[in-house]
Amino acid sequence: MKELNKSIRSFAEERGWEQYHTPKNLSMALAVEAAELMEIFQWMTPGECMNLTAQQKVHAGEELADITIYALRLFDVLGIDPESAVVDKIGKNGRKYPSGKGSGVE
Amino acid sequence: MKELNKSIRSFAEERGWEQYHTPKNLSMALAVEAAELMEIFQWMTPGECMNLTAQQKVHAGEELADITIYALRLFDVLGIDPESAVVDKIGKNGRKYPSGKGSGVE
Amino acid sequence: MKELNKSIRSFAEERGWEQYHTPKNLSMALAVEAAELMEIFQWMTPGECMNLTAQQKVHAGEELADITIYALRLFDVLGIDPESAVVDKIGKNGRKYPSGKGSGVE
Amino acid sequence: MKELNKSIRSFAEERGWEQYHTPKNLSMALAVEAAELMEIFQWMTPGECMNLTAQQKVHAGEELADITIYALRLFDVLGIDPESAVVDKIGKNGRKYPSGKGSGVE
Repeated sequence: MKELNKSIRSFAEERGWEQYHTPKNLSMALAVEAAELMEIFQWMTPGECMNLTAQQKVHAGEELADITIYALRLFDVLGIDPESAVVDKIGKNGRKYPSGKGSGVE
Repeated sequence: MKELNKSIRSFAEERGWEQYHTPKNLSMALAVEAAELMEIFQWMTPGECMNLTAQQKVHAGEELADITIYALRLFDVLGIDPESAVVDKIGKNGRKYPSGKGSGVE
Repeated sequence: MKELNKSIRSFAEERGWEQYHTPKNLSMALAVEAAELMEIFQWMTPGECMNLTAQQKVHAGEELADITIYALRLFDVLGIDPESAVVDKIGKNGRKYPSGKGSGVE
Repeated sequence: MKELNKSIRSFAEERGWEQYHTPKNLSMALAVEAAELMEIFQWMTPGECMNLTAQQKVHAGEELADITIYALRLFDVLGIDPESAVVDKIGKNGRKYPSGKGSGVE
Protein backbone atom coordinates (compact mmCIF):
# COMPACT_ATOMS: atom_id res chain seq x y z
CA MET A 1 0.00 0.00 0.00
CA LYS A 2 2.98 2.31 0.56
CA GLU A 3 3.69 2.45 -3.18
CA LEU A 4 0.04 3.23 -3.97
CA ASN A 5 0.02 5.91 -1.29
CA LYS A 6 3.02 7.60 -2.84
CA SER A 7 1.63 7.64 -6.35
CA ILE A 8 -1.73 8.98 -5.07
CA ARG A 9 0.11 11.75 -3.23
CA SER A 10 2.16 12.69 -6.31
CA PHE A 11 -1.02 12.71 -8.38
CA ALA A 12 -2.57 15.33 -6.07
CA GLU A 13 0.63 17.38 -5.83
CA GLU A 14 1.20 17.51 -9.59
CA ARG A 15 -2.28 19.00 -9.98
CA GLY A 16 -2.05 21.50 -7.10
CA TRP A 17 -4.91 19.73 -5.30
CA GLU A 18 -3.40 19.65 -1.79
CA GLN A 19 -5.33 22.80 -0.89
CA TYR A 20 -8.63 21.01 -1.62
CA HIS A 21 -7.64 17.78 0.11
CA THR A 22 -8.65 18.67 3.66
CA PRO A 23 -10.01 15.80 5.79
CA LYS A 24 -13.50 17.31 5.56
CA ASN A 25 -13.48 17.57 1.76
CA LEU A 26 -11.93 14.12 1.34
CA SER A 27 -14.60 12.57 3.58
CA MET A 28 -17.24 14.17 1.33
CA ALA A 29 -15.50 12.90 -1.81
CA LEU A 30 -15.41 9.41 -0.31
CA ALA A 31 -19.15 9.53 0.45
CA VAL A 32 -19.89 10.78 -3.08
CA GLU A 33 -17.92 7.88 -4.60
CA ALA A 34 -19.64 5.42 -2.24
CA ALA A 35 -23.01 6.70 -3.53
CA GLU A 36 -21.87 6.26 -7.15
CA LEU A 37 -21.08 2.64 -6.33
CA MET A 38 -24.48 2.19 -4.64
CA GLU A 39 -26.23 3.66 -7.65
CA ILE A 40 -25.18 0.61 -9.69
CA PHE A 41 -27.04 -1.72 -7.32
CA GLN A 42 -29.90 0.40 -5.96
CA TRP A 43 -32.82 -1.05 -7.92
CA MET A 44 -31.43 -4.61 -8.22
CA THR A 45 -32.86 -7.65 -6.49
CA PRO A 46 -30.42 -9.70 -4.37
CA GLY A 47 -30.23 -12.18 -7.25
CA GLU A 48 -29.49 -9.52 -9.86
CA CYS A 49 -26.66 -7.96 -7.87
CA MET A 50 -25.02 -11.42 -7.66
CA ASN A 51 -25.15 -11.78 -11.47
CA LEU A 52 -23.62 -8.63 -12.86
CA THR A 53 -22.86 -8.18 -16.53
CA ALA A 54 -19.19 -7.75 -17.45
CA GLN A 55 -19.81 -4.04 -17.94
CA GLN A 56 -21.48 -3.60 -14.54
CA LYS A 57 -18.60 -5.44 -12.89
CA VAL A 58 -16.01 -3.19 -14.55
CA HIS A 59 -18.04 -0.15 -13.49
CA ALA A 60 -18.26 -1.37 -9.87
CA GLY A 61 -14.51 -2.06 -9.85
CA GLU A 62 -13.79 1.49 -10.98
CA GLU A 63 -16.01 3.05 -8.33
CA LEU A 64 -14.43 0.81 -5.69
CA ALA A 65 -10.99 1.91 -6.92
CA ASP A 66 -11.98 5.58 -6.52
CA ILE A 67 -13.17 4.86 -2.97
CA THR A 68 -9.88 3.12 -2.17
CA ILE A 69 -7.86 5.98 -3.69
CA TYR A 70 -9.64 8.57 -1.53
CA ALA A 71 -9.34 6.36 1.56
CA LEU A 72 -5.57 5.98 1.01
CA ARG A 73 -5.29 9.72 0.32
CA LEU A 74 -7.02 10.57 3.59
CA PHE A 75 -4.94 8.07 5.55
CA ASP A 76 -1.90 9.87 4.10
CA VAL A 77 -3.20 13.38 4.91
CA LEU A 78 -3.88 12.24 8.50
CA GLY A 79 -0.44 10.60 8.77
CA ILE A 80 -1.93 7.19 9.59
CA ASP A 81 -0.49 3.93 8.22
CA PRO A 82 -3.39 2.23 6.37
CA GLU A 83 -2.14 -1.31 6.80
CA SER A 84 -1.74 -1.10 10.59
CA ALA A 85 -5.07 0.73 10.87
CA VAL A 86 -6.86 -2.04 8.97
CA VAL A 87 -5.16 -4.85 10.90
CA ASP A 88 -5.96 -3.13 14.23
CA LYS A 89 -9.58 -2.55 13.23
CA ILE A 90 -10.07 -6.20 12.18
CA GLY A 91 -8.81 -7.13 15.66
CA LYS A 92 -11.19 -4.68 17.33
CA ASN A 93 -14.15 -5.83 15.21
CA GLY A 94 -13.27 -9.42 16.15
CA ARG A 95 -13.55 -8.61 19.84
CA LYS A 96 -16.89 -6.86 19.21
CA TYR A 97 -18.30 -9.73 17.14
CA PRO A 98 -16.71 -12.96 18.45
CA SER A 99 -16.87 -15.76 15.87
CA GLY A 100 -18.90 -18.90 16.46
CA LYS A 101 -22.10 -16.96 17.09
CA GLY A 102 -23.12 -16.99 13.46
CA SER A 103 -26.29 -15.00 13.65
CA GLY A 104 -24.70 -11.66 14.51
CA VAL A 105 -24.69 -9.01 11.87
CA GLU A 106 -22.55 -5.89 11.98
CA MET B 1 -3.37 -6.27 0.13
CA LYS B 2 -3.72 -9.99 -0.63
CA GLU B 3 -3.02 -10.89 2.99
CA LEU B 4 -5.57 -8.35 4.24
CA ASN B 5 -8.10 -9.64 1.73
CA LYS B 6 -7.70 -13.16 3.04
CA SER B 7 -8.11 -12.24 6.68
CA ILE B 8 -11.20 -10.13 5.88
CA ARG B 9 -12.70 -13.07 3.99
CA SER B 10 -12.01 -15.47 6.88
CA PHE B 11 -13.54 -12.96 9.29
CA ALA B 12 -16.81 -12.99 7.33
CA GLU B 13 -16.80 -16.78 6.86
CA GLU B 14 -16.18 -17.53 10.53
CA ARG B 15 -19.28 -15.48 11.38
CA GLY B 16 -21.52 -16.89 8.65
CA TRP B 17 -21.85 -13.46 7.10
CA GLU B 18 -21.33 -14.46 3.43
CA GLN B 19 -25.10 -14.56 2.91
CA TYR B 20 -25.36 -10.88 3.89
CA HIS B 21 -22.33 -9.80 1.89
CA THR B 22 -23.99 -9.26 -1.48
CA PRO B 23 -22.58 -6.42 -3.60
CA LYS B 24 -25.72 -4.37 -2.92
CA ASN B 25 -25.52 -4.76 0.86
CA LEU B 26 -21.77 -4.15 0.93
CA SER B 27 -22.18 -0.95 -1.10
CA MET B 28 -24.71 0.23 1.51
CA ALA B 29 -22.37 -0.69 4.36
CA LEU B 30 -19.58 1.26 2.66
CA ALA B 31 -21.81 4.33 2.32
CA VAL B 32 -22.87 4.05 5.98
CA GLU B 33 -19.22 3.93 7.11
CA ALA B 34 -18.37 6.86 4.81
CA ALA B 35 -21.14 8.86 6.52
CA GLU B 36 -19.78 7.96 9.97
CA LEU B 37 -16.42 9.36 8.85
CA MET B 38 -18.08 12.53 7.51
CA GLU B 39 -19.94 12.99 10.77
CA ILE B 40 -16.62 13.71 12.51
CA PHE B 41 -15.95 16.67 10.21
CA GLN B 42 -19.43 17.95 9.31
CA TRP B 43 -19.60 21.08 11.48
CA MET B 44 -15.85 21.87 11.43
CA THR B 45 -14.30 24.84 9.67
CA PRO B 46 -11.48 24.09 7.20
CA GLY B 47 -9.02 25.14 9.90
CA GLU B 48 -10.53 22.90 12.55
CA CYS B 49 -10.49 19.80 10.36
CA MET B 50 -6.74 20.35 9.79
CA ASN B 51 -6.11 20.46 13.56
CA LEU B 52 -7.74 17.35 14.96
CA THR B 53 -7.31 16.24 18.54
CA ALA B 54 -5.55 12.92 19.06
CA GLN B 55 -8.92 11.34 19.85
CA GLN B 56 -10.57 12.68 16.67
CA LYS B 57 -7.63 11.40 14.62
CA VAL B 58 -7.91 7.91 16.11
CA HIS B 59 -11.65 7.97 15.46
CA ALA B 60 -11.16 9.04 11.83
CA GLY B 61 -8.53 6.32 11.36
CA GLU B 62 -10.97 3.68 12.61
CA GLU B 63 -13.77 4.81 10.31
CA LEU B 64 -11.33 4.89 7.39
CA ALA B 65 -10.22 1.37 8.30
CA ASP B 66 -13.84 0.16 8.22
CA ILE B 67 -14.29 1.76 4.80
CA THR B 68 -11.13 0.05 3.54
CA ILE B 69 -12.24 -3.30 5.00
CA TYR B 70 -15.60 -3.15 3.20
CA ALA B 71 -13.93 -1.98 -0.02
CA LEU B 72 -11.49 -4.93 0.09
CA ARG B 73 -14.36 -7.28 0.95
CA LEU B 74 -16.39 -6.12 -2.05
CA PHE B 75 -13.36 -6.35 -4.37
CA ASP B 76 -13.04 -9.95 -3.15
CA VAL B 77 -16.75 -10.79 -3.61
CA LEU B 78 -16.57 -9.38 -7.16
CA GLY B 79 -13.36 -11.30 -7.89
CA ILE B 80 -11.42 -8.13 -8.75
CA ASP B 81 -7.79 -7.59 -7.74
CA PRO B 82 -7.76 -4.35 -5.69
CA GLU B 83 -4.18 -3.39 -6.46
CA SER B 84 -4.57 -3.62 -10.26
CA ALA B 85 -7.92 -1.85 -10.07
CA VAL B 86 -6.41 1.06 -8.15
CA VAL B 87 -3.34 1.32 -10.42
CA ASP B 88 -5.57 1.22 -13.54
CA LYS B 89 -7.92 3.86 -12.11
CA ILE B 90 -5.04 6.21 -11.23
CA GLY B 91 -3.96 5.91 -14.88
CA LYS B 92 -7.48 6.61 -16.13
CA ASN B 93 -7.91 9.58 -13.77
CA GLY B 94 -4.56 10.91 -15.00
CA ARG B 95 -5.79 10.90 -18.60
CA LYS B 96 -8.99 12.66 -17.50
CA TYR B 97 -7.15 15.31 -15.46
CA PRO B 98 -3.74 15.87 -17.11
CA SER B 99 -1.21 17.42 -14.72
CA GLY B 100 0.17 20.89 -15.28
CA LYS B 101 -3.28 22.42 -15.44
CA GLY B 102 -3.44 23.03 -11.73
CA SER B 103 -6.83 24.61 -11.49
CA GLY B 104 -8.84 21.51 -12.31
CA VAL B 105 -10.70 19.87 -9.50
CA GLU B 106 -12.11 16.37 -9.65
CA MET C 1 -44.61 23.62 4.51
CA LYS C 2 -44.25 27.34 5.17
CA GLU C 3 -45.17 26.86 8.83
CA LEU C 4 -42.68 24.01 9.21
CA ASN C 5 -40.02 26.11 7.52
CA LYS C 6 -40.54 28.90 10.00
CA SER C 7 -40.36 26.70 13.07
CA ILE C 8 -37.20 25.00 11.74
CA ARG C 9 -35.62 28.42 11.17
CA SER C 10 -36.51 29.60 14.69
CA PHE C 11 -35.12 26.37 16.08
CA ALA C 12 -31.72 27.08 14.49
CA GLU C 13 -31.74 30.77 15.44
CA GLU C 14 -32.61 30.13 19.10
CA ARG C 15 -29.55 27.89 19.33
CA GLY C 16 -27.15 30.17 17.46
CA TRP C 17 -26.69 27.54 14.75
CA GLU C 18 -26.97 29.82 11.68
CA GLN C 19 -23.18 30.05 11.48
CA TYR C 20 -22.96 26.26 11.06
CA HIS C 21 -25.83 26.03 8.60
CA THR C 22 -23.95 26.73 5.37
CA PRO C 23 -25.20 24.89 2.27
CA LYS C 24 -22.08 22.71 2.36
CA ASN C 25 -22.53 21.69 6.00
CA LEU C 26 -26.27 21.13 5.60
CA SER C 27 -25.69 18.90 2.56
CA MET C 28 -23.32 16.81 4.70
CA ALA C 29 -25.84 16.66 7.55
CA LEU C 30 -28.49 15.48 5.07
CA ALA C 31 -26.20 12.73 3.78
CA VAL C 32 -25.38 11.63 7.34
CA GLU C 33 -29.09 11.37 8.20
CA ALA C 34 -29.76 9.50 4.94
CA ALA C 35 -27.09 6.99 5.96
CA GLU C 36 -28.67 6.56 9.41
CA LEU C 37 -31.94 5.71 7.65
CA MET C 38 -30.16 3.24 5.36
CA GLU C 39 -28.49 1.59 8.32
CA ILE C 40 -31.90 0.33 9.46
CA PHE C 41 -32.39 -1.60 6.20
CA GLN C 42 -28.86 -2.47 5.10
CA TRP C 43 -28.78 -6.18 5.98
CA MET C 44 -32.50 -6.85 5.42
CA THR C 45 -33.92 -8.98 2.60
CA PRO C 46 -36.57 -7.30 0.41
CA GLY C 47 -39.21 -9.24 2.37
CA GLU C 48 -37.87 -8.17 5.76
CA CYS C 49 -37.82 -4.47 4.87
CA MET C 50 -41.50 -4.74 3.88
CA ASN C 51 -42.38 -6.19 7.31
CA LEU C 52 -40.88 -3.86 9.85
CA THR C 53 -41.54 -4.15 13.56
CA ALA C 54 -43.38 -1.21 15.17
CA GLN C 55 -40.08 -0.07 16.67
CA GLN C 56 -38.22 -0.19 13.34
CA LYS C 57 -41.02 1.79 11.72
CA VAL C 58 -40.89 4.49 14.41
CA HIS C 59 -37.11 4.63 14.01
CA ALA C 60 -37.38 4.97 10.21
CA GLY C 61 -40.00 7.71 10.60
CA GLU C 62 -37.68 9.68 12.89
CA GLU C 63 -34.73 9.43 10.52
CA LEU C 64 -36.99 10.47 7.62
CA ALA C 65 -38.19 13.42 9.69
CA ASP C 66 -34.58 14.53 10.30
CA ILE C 67 -33.89 14.29 6.55
CA THR C 68 -37.00 16.39 5.82
CA ILE C 69 -36.03 18.96 8.47
CA TYR C 70 -32.56 19.43 6.95
CA ALA C 71 -34.01 19.56 3.42
CA LEU C 72 -36.49 22.28 4.47
CA ARG C 73 -33.71 24.12 6.31
CA LEU C 74 -31.48 24.11 3.22
CA PHE C 75 -34.35 25.23 0.96
CA ASP C 76 -34.78 28.14 3.40
CA VAL C 77 -31.07 29.02 3.51
CA LEU C 78 -31.00 29.03 -0.32
CA GLY C 79 -34.18 31.13 -0.48
CA ILE C 80 -36.01 28.51 -2.58
CA ASP C 81 -39.69 27.69 -2.07
CA PRO C 82 -39.83 23.92 -1.36
CA GLU C 83 -43.34 23.35 -2.65
CA SER C 84 -42.73 24.96 -6.06
CA ALA C 85 -39.36 23.22 -6.33
CA VAL C 86 -40.96 19.81 -5.70
CA VAL C 87 -43.87 20.43 -8.10
CA ASP C 88 -41.46 21.63 -10.81
CA LYS C 89 -39.17 18.64 -10.31
CA ILE C 90 -42.07 16.16 -10.54
CA GLY C 91 -42.92 17.81 -13.87
CA LYS C 92 -39.32 17.56 -15.08
CA ASN C 93 -39.01 13.93 -13.96
CA GLY C 94 -42.28 13.21 -15.80
CA ARG C 95 -40.81 14.49 -19.05
CA LYS C 96 -37.66 12.42 -18.49
CA TYR C 97 -39.61 9.24 -17.68
CA PRO C 98 -42.89 9.38 -19.62
CA SER C 99 -45.55 7.10 -18.12
CA GLY C 100 -46.93 4.10 -19.94
CA LYS C 101 -43.49 2.62 -20.53
CA GLY C 102 -43.51 0.66 -17.32
CA SER C 103 -40.11 -0.92 -17.52
CA GLY C 104 -38.12 2.26 -16.95
CA VAL C 105 -36.41 2.70 -13.65
CA GLU C 106 -35.08 5.98 -12.39
CA MET D 1 -47.86 17.87 1.85
CA LYS D 2 -50.85 15.55 1.34
CA GLU D 3 -51.32 16.81 -2.22
CA LEU D 4 -47.64 16.32 -3.01
CA ASN D 5 -47.75 12.87 -1.50
CA LYS D 6 -50.60 11.89 -3.75
CA SER D 7 -49.01 13.12 -6.94
CA ILE D 8 -45.73 11.37 -6.05
CA ARG D 9 -47.65 8.13 -5.46
CA SER D 10 -49.48 8.43 -8.79
CA PHE D 11 -46.18 9.13 -10.51
CA ALA D 12 -44.75 5.83 -9.26
CA GLU D 13 -47.93 3.87 -9.98
CA GLU D 14 -48.26 5.15 -13.55
CA ARG D 15 -44.75 3.87 -14.24
CA GLY D 16 -45.14 0.51 -12.49
CA TRP D 17 -42.41 1.41 -10.02
CA GLU D 18 -44.13 0.21 -6.82
CA GLN D 19 -42.23 -3.08 -7.03
CA TYR D 20 -38.90 -1.19 -6.83
CA HIS D 21 -40.04 1.19 -4.10
CA THR D 22 -39.24 -0.94 -1.06
CA PRO D 23 -38.06 0.94 2.04
CA LYS D 24 -34.55 -0.43 1.50
CA ASN D 25 -34.34 0.72 -2.12
CA LEU D 26 -35.88 4.11 -1.35
CA SER D 27 -33.39 4.69 1.47
CA MET D 28 -30.59 4.00 -1.03
CA ALA D 29 -32.15 6.35 -3.60
CA LEU D 30 -32.36 9.06 -0.92
CA ALA D 31 -28.69 8.61 -0.03
CA VAL D 32 -27.70 8.73 -3.71
CA GLU D 33 -29.62 12.01 -4.19
CA ALA D 34 -28.07 13.42 -1.00
CA ALA D 35 -24.63 12.65 -2.45
CA GLU D 36 -25.53 14.41 -5.72
CA LEU D 37 -26.41 17.49 -3.67
CA MET D 38 -23.14 17.24 -1.73
CA GLU D 39 -21.18 16.95 -4.95
CA ILE D 40 -22.13 20.56 -5.78
CA PHE D 41 -20.45 21.82 -2.62
CA GLN D 42 -17.66 19.34 -1.96
CA TRP D 43 -14.65 21.38 -3.06
CA MET D 44 -16.07 24.81 -2.14
CA THR D 45 -14.78 27.00 0.69
CA PRO D 46 -17.38 28.16 3.27
CA GLY D 47 -17.42 31.52 1.47
CA GLU D 48 -17.95 30.00 -1.96
CA CYS D 49 -20.89 27.85 -0.86
CA MET D 50 -22.57 30.99 0.49
CA ASN D 51 -22.22 32.74 -2.91
CA LEU D 52 -23.60 30.32 -5.45
CA THR D 53 -24.12 31.25 -9.09
CA ALA D 54 -27.73 31.25 -10.30
CA GLN D 55 -27.04 27.96 -12.09
CA GLN D 56 -25.57 26.30 -8.98
CA LYS D 57 -28.58 27.43 -6.96
CA VAL D 58 -31.03 25.97 -9.48
CA HIS D 59 -29.02 22.74 -9.50
CA ALA D 60 -29.05 22.55 -5.67
CA GLY D 61 -32.81 23.22 -5.64
CA GLU D 62 -33.41 20.34 -8.04
CA GLU D 63 -31.34 17.89 -6.00
CA LEU D 64 -33.13 19.04 -2.82
CA ALA D 65 -36.45 18.50 -4.59
CA ASP D 66 -35.45 14.93 -5.50
CA ILE D 67 -34.48 14.28 -1.87
CA THR D 68 -37.84 15.65 -0.70
CA ILE D 69 -39.73 13.56 -3.28
CA TYR D 70 -38.05 10.34 -2.13
CA ALA D 71 -38.59 11.27 1.53
CA LEU D 72 -42.31 11.88 0.93
CA ARG D 73 -42.51 8.65 -1.10
CA LEU D 74 -40.97 6.62 1.73
CA PHE D 75 -43.21 8.27 4.35
CA ASP D 76 -46.12 7.15 2.14
CA VAL D 77 -44.83 3.58 1.69
CA LEU D 78 -44.41 3.30 5.48
CA GLY D 79 -47.87 4.78 6.10
CA ILE D 80 -46.48 7.62 8.22
CA ASP D 81 -47.86 11.17 8.05
CA PRO D 82 -44.87 13.41 7.15
CA GLU D 83 -46.20 16.56 8.77
CA SER D 84 -46.82 14.97 12.19
CA ALA D 85 -43.50 13.13 11.99
CA VAL D 86 -41.63 16.37 11.35
CA VAL D 87 -43.48 18.30 14.08
CA ASP D 88 -42.86 15.48 16.58
CA LYS D 89 -39.18 15.28 15.68
CA ILE D 90 -38.69 19.03 16.07
CA GLY D 91 -40.16 18.64 19.56
CA LYS D 92 -37.86 15.72 20.35
CA ASN D 93 -34.79 17.54 19.01
CA GLY D 94 -35.79 20.55 21.14
CA ARG D 95 -35.71 18.44 24.28
CA LYS D 96 -32.32 17.00 23.28
CA TYR D 97 -30.82 20.42 22.51
CA PRO D 98 -32.54 22.96 24.79
CA SER D 99 -32.25 26.50 23.47
CA GLY D 100 -30.29 29.18 25.31
CA LYS D 101 -27.13 27.10 25.36
CA GLY D 102 -25.90 28.46 22.09
CA SER D 103 -22.67 26.56 21.75
CA GLY D 104 -24.24 23.15 21.20
CA VAL D 105 -24.08 21.66 17.77
CA GLU D 106 -26.26 18.82 16.61
